Amino acid sequence: MNYCAQCGGPIVREVPVDDNRLRHVCSTCRTIHYQNPRVVAGCIAEWKGKILLCRRAIEPRSGRWTLPAGFMELGETTAEAAVRETLEEANARVGEPELYTIMSLPHADQVYMMYRAPLLDLNFSPGAESTRVELYGPGTVPWEELAFPTIHHTLTCYLQDLAHGAFRLRAGDLVRDDAGFQFKIGK
Amino acid sequence: MNYCAQCGGPIVREVPVDDNRLRHVCSTCRTIHYQNPRVVAGCIAEWKGKILLCRRAIEPRSGRWTLPAGFMELGETTAEAAVRETLEEANARVGEPELYTIMSLPHADQVYMMYRAPLLDLNFSPGAESTRVELYGPGTVPWEELAFPTIHHTLTCYLQDLAHGAFRLRAGDLVRDDAGFQFKIGK
Repeated sequence: MNYCAQCGGPIVREVPVDDNRLRHVCSTCRTIHYQNPRVVAGCIAEWKGKILLCRRAIEPRSGRWTLPAGFMELGETTAEAAVRETLEEANARVGEPELYTIMSLPHADQVYMMYRAPLLDLNFSPGAESTRVELYGPGTVPWEELAFPTIHHTLTCYLQDLAHGAFRLRAGDLVRDDAGFQFKIGK
Repeated sequence: MNYCAQCGGPIVREVPVDDNRLRHVCSTCRTIHYQNPRVVAGCIAEWKGKILLCRRAIEPRSGRWTLPAGFMELGETTAEAAVRETLEEANARVGEPELYTIMSLPHADQVYMMYRAPLLDLNFSPGAESTRVELYGPGTVPWEELAFPTIHHTLTCYLQDLAHGAFRLRAGDLVRDDAGFQFKIGK
């Protein structure tokens, strides 16, 4: 951030009065430009024991598989964002979504909120950000070609719950250690 | 938003290629400046059947009572944000937080995530954004003087669960109708 979005003045980094963090502050009009994490919402779209995966057409991780998901927009709810992203990335219509995983990603300044939702029909197809959209069963998930640790851990929870025949919401943090990213589930 | 934070050029509002929403776009360097909802995290800090409320020192709703909560910062998890806000607004230390309510506020471009957490000691006091911090029991909550609908609905759920002796997570949306804001709980 170099210039003030309000007045065009030069930005400096300083700790404002009554604050304890470095912020981007306009040296002309003194506007403080806060930065905050973003919410990513998406769906596990379910059809007769299978789920919908999208092959990414864009970076990051172009060519890898993901659940349809993306940044929440102004004016919508997290559930609406999840349903919209499923429509945009997979041209797939889903019924009422149920919140399933909530993951903080402090390294990426994101909070993932993934829903389970019933796929309403088989008329799905790749949206602008996907090259392929396919249904995968529990035994055929392309684990080595998944795009993001969030997707890996959401699907791991999902297949465990599917095997047990009962789903429960998981909230926690995706933290990095020597073995990669681990989903540390909270209380 | 008037000027590009990247190059200082004038901002125009237009729908970028492969997009379907009006965005703030720099007419000089073509940077797209996305805007997204923010996460507010906070705690119900519990002490022997009572909970901690803060009287706001700042607008909006100066003079009204709230649960300690505030905007999630870069580099932290939602649980860390909730614990930090409780420390900043009430100088109160809490133990491990447990996620309790998740509310989308599409009218405010916010997602609230409120945790339950045990208060560790009674050495709390007003932080910079509070004038008073007090413990309230179920019968003494100042319902008419609460700052925000999110606080009202979180406390309503909490006192129902407290009476039943079991707490369960609620996720849903705060939507406005003729009677005010209602917490519409999702699946």
